[in-house]
Amino acid sequence: MSKPAALIIGSSEKDSDLFYATKFIAPDPFIFVEIRNKKYLLANDLEIDRAKKQAAVHAVVSTSVLSKAYRAKFKKAAPLEEKLFWFLKKHRVKSLIIPADFPVRYYEPLKRAGFRIRYKNPPFYEKRSIKNRYEIAAIKQALRATEYAVAKAIQVLKKSVIKKNRLYYKSKLLTSEFLKTIIHQSLLEKSCIGEHTIVSCGQQTIDPHHRGSGPLYAHQPIIMDVFPRHEQTLYYADFTRTVVRGKASPVLKRMYAAVKEGQKIAFQMIRARMDGKKVHAAIQERFSQSGFQTGNMGGRMQGFFHSTGHGLGLDIHEPPRIGAATDLLKAGQVVTVEPGLYYKGIGGVRLEDVVLVTKKGCTNLTKFPKFLEL
Amino acid sequence: MSKPAALIIGSSEKDSDLFYATKFIAPDPFIFVEIRNKKYLLANDLEIDRAKKQAAVHAVVSTSVLSKAYRAKFKKAAPLEEKLFWFLKKHRVKSLIIPADFPVRYYEPLKRAGFRIRYKNPPFYEKRSIKNRYEIAAIKQALRATEYAVAKAIQVLKKSVIKKNRLYYKSKLLTSEFLKTIIHQSLLEKSCIGEHTIVSCGQQTIDPHHRGSGPLYAHQPIIMDVFPRHEQTLYYADFTRTVVRGKASPVLKRMYAAVKEGQKIAFQMIRARMDGKKVHAAIQERFSQSGFQTGNMGGRMQGFFHSTGHGLGLDIHEPPRIGAATDLLKAGQVVTVEPGLYYKGIGGVRLEDVVLVTKKGCTNLTKFPKFLEL
Repeated sequence: MSKPAALIIGSSEKDSDLFYATKFIAPDPFIFVEIRNKKYLLANDLEIDRAKKQAAVHAVVSTSVLSKAYRAKFKKAAPLEEKLFWFLKKHRVKSLIIPADFPVRYYEPLKRAGFRIRYKNPPFYEKRSIKNRYEIAAIKQALRATEYAVAKAIQVLKKSVIKKNRLYYKSKLLTSEFLKTIIHQSLLEKSCIGEHTIVSCGQQTIDPHHRGSGPLYAHQPIIMDVFPRHEQTLYYADFTRTVVRGKASPVLKRMYAAVKEGQKIAFQMIRARMDGKKVHAAIQERFSQSGFQTGNMGGRMQGFFHSTGHGLGLDIHEPPRIGAATDLLKAGQVVTVEPGLYYKGIGGVRLEDVVLVTKKGCTNLTKFPKFLEL
Repeated sequence: MSKPAALIIGSSEKDSDLFYATKFIAPDPFIFVEIRNKKYLLANDLEIDRAKKQAAVHAVVSTSVLSKAYRAKFKKAAPLEEKLFWFLKKHRVKSLIIPADFPVRYYEPLKRAGFRIRYKNPPFYEKRSIKNRYEIAAIKQALRATEYAVAKAIQVLKKSVIKKNRLYYKSKLLTSEFLKTIIHQSLLEKSCIGEHTIVSCGQQTIDPHHRGSGPLYAHQPIIMDVFPRHEQTLYYADFTRTVVRGKASPVLKRMYAAVKEGQKIAFQMIRARMDGKKVHAAIQERFSQSGFQTGNMGGRMQGFFHSTGHGLGLDIHEPPRIGAATDLLKAGQVVTVEPGLYYKGIGGVRLEDVVLVTKKGCTNLTKFPKFLEL
């Protein structure tokens, strides 16, 4: 039996596997088929010229030419599905392999048309988690942009004036929103787009996904979690720092030291063939030993209740995971290391760097210093 | 037979139906089920508190509480699917309705578990195309931000100096990239995120989807197509202007007048119960009458070879269409009107406004003047 053809239908802006396979960015859905190691992209009139120039495929096929040929043969108009079936049959495709998120609207008609179909749980392309030199450079470039932007935000915090525990910058109340705009505009200077950036403060920080809003306060933790995508390469950075403008409380200082130590444990353990679960468990254990327990306290999760890290690339979250489940790391993977501690009444601390897994260890791709008080 | 339960699994950042149903923004996938008009959101520990605060649903269910209950009853761990099946069975759900882009990875196990499943072609929520006052205000807000940003870009173009047909701003060569950065930074001031913005010039403009790059030229068409999303509301704007810094050629001026007239035809025809196809055909016909033919010339599509418009809202492209296919407009829909003409050797012209369809006509939500030469 011949190897099944790979089929992806989607928008490459939303579907990283499709972009990975074709290197073609398009806002609207298009079809990608790989038959016996030959890549085909089926594009409409609007995209065909750009696809011919930019797509890293063997052939770009016009869907309107397909339509014309279909109509000439079958004397009727062809919806997308029929054109695709005809194309597949013309190429003697009998079996297909599709991604797990393949839409049911195309899956069901293909099944009814008699194709043998297997869907593959993520990752669709295993090798996507192993980054080549171009990809590592792209992630580094996005990290440099992120550090540049966070440095700008830290400058603003440093220059801010404390009055009654609030911060004022150029005589105006300093807010989360203002700092996010500074970060996003600085990212744009470096061709990166930041979305859903977190600049949270005080009690907001105990919820790791709280984006933050409103005034920033002195002597309280400020978490900045910035994860922009580069406009041209489409690769992400992921970066978190926790700072305090003014004086941090003694317990917050101890949390900061513990989280930093948690990162260090990961940096020492991460290498090819290490189980991510072990790294995560080692950090959890150290936190417990240092007196920072994890669990449901007073109706909410507190302590260290998210995973240690995740792969980074064309998606902000991609394999491997460094968390509760077993996942063996591989050389060439790029992963975040982002332990955190969160307690009601105190606040949250999270530090996040990005490392490249190597045969014998890991290389920190993040170059930004760590300091708590400003 | 009872009404089937609606089920969506996905990330609400990527899936507008999911956001529409829940009003909850989350980067990671979550589960939404509507059973007998009661909405449930199934969230993990990381998102549960935020979901409880923000989601417009009747109940937020913790997946870890589901797991615990499942394990207590069945004495084994539960993958996501099993938890979901158990939840559905507990609520006596037997049949499901899912969106057409529902992932096969959940569809197949649900089918095997015995649920009757029907998938629904878009739109999943018909009423999403009919905008309420809040939604119209959100689109207007995004349009105002877009106009503000394009005005900034036009200021730069006006202030630029022409030397040997190139443009210089503050003694530096003016590029598409620079103008896009100006636009994106200005959008951010208004809490909007611009992506894939088009600032194309000269021969680039004959490809409607060419993003543009490199130096901008005097006496050549410059197309600015800007379609940002508002960070808080998630609604889009869509806006295009074509300008020339310097003198436009006589034929380009005629194309501009024709495209503007094309828009006018649409403004006059658009109203509730009008067929979008008729609007599109009327513009095409007028273009032909004015001597601007459409078709494949010299191996590439030229003339007016994209549709006239599309619905706008939580997605940049949503129903209805104003194009080659029949689609009856409805009062309350918000649609773009964006005819264009593209000819090799001359360049492209596109103008795009956004209108609200009313019972007896339409209201232009765009407030920006139209002028060609700067």
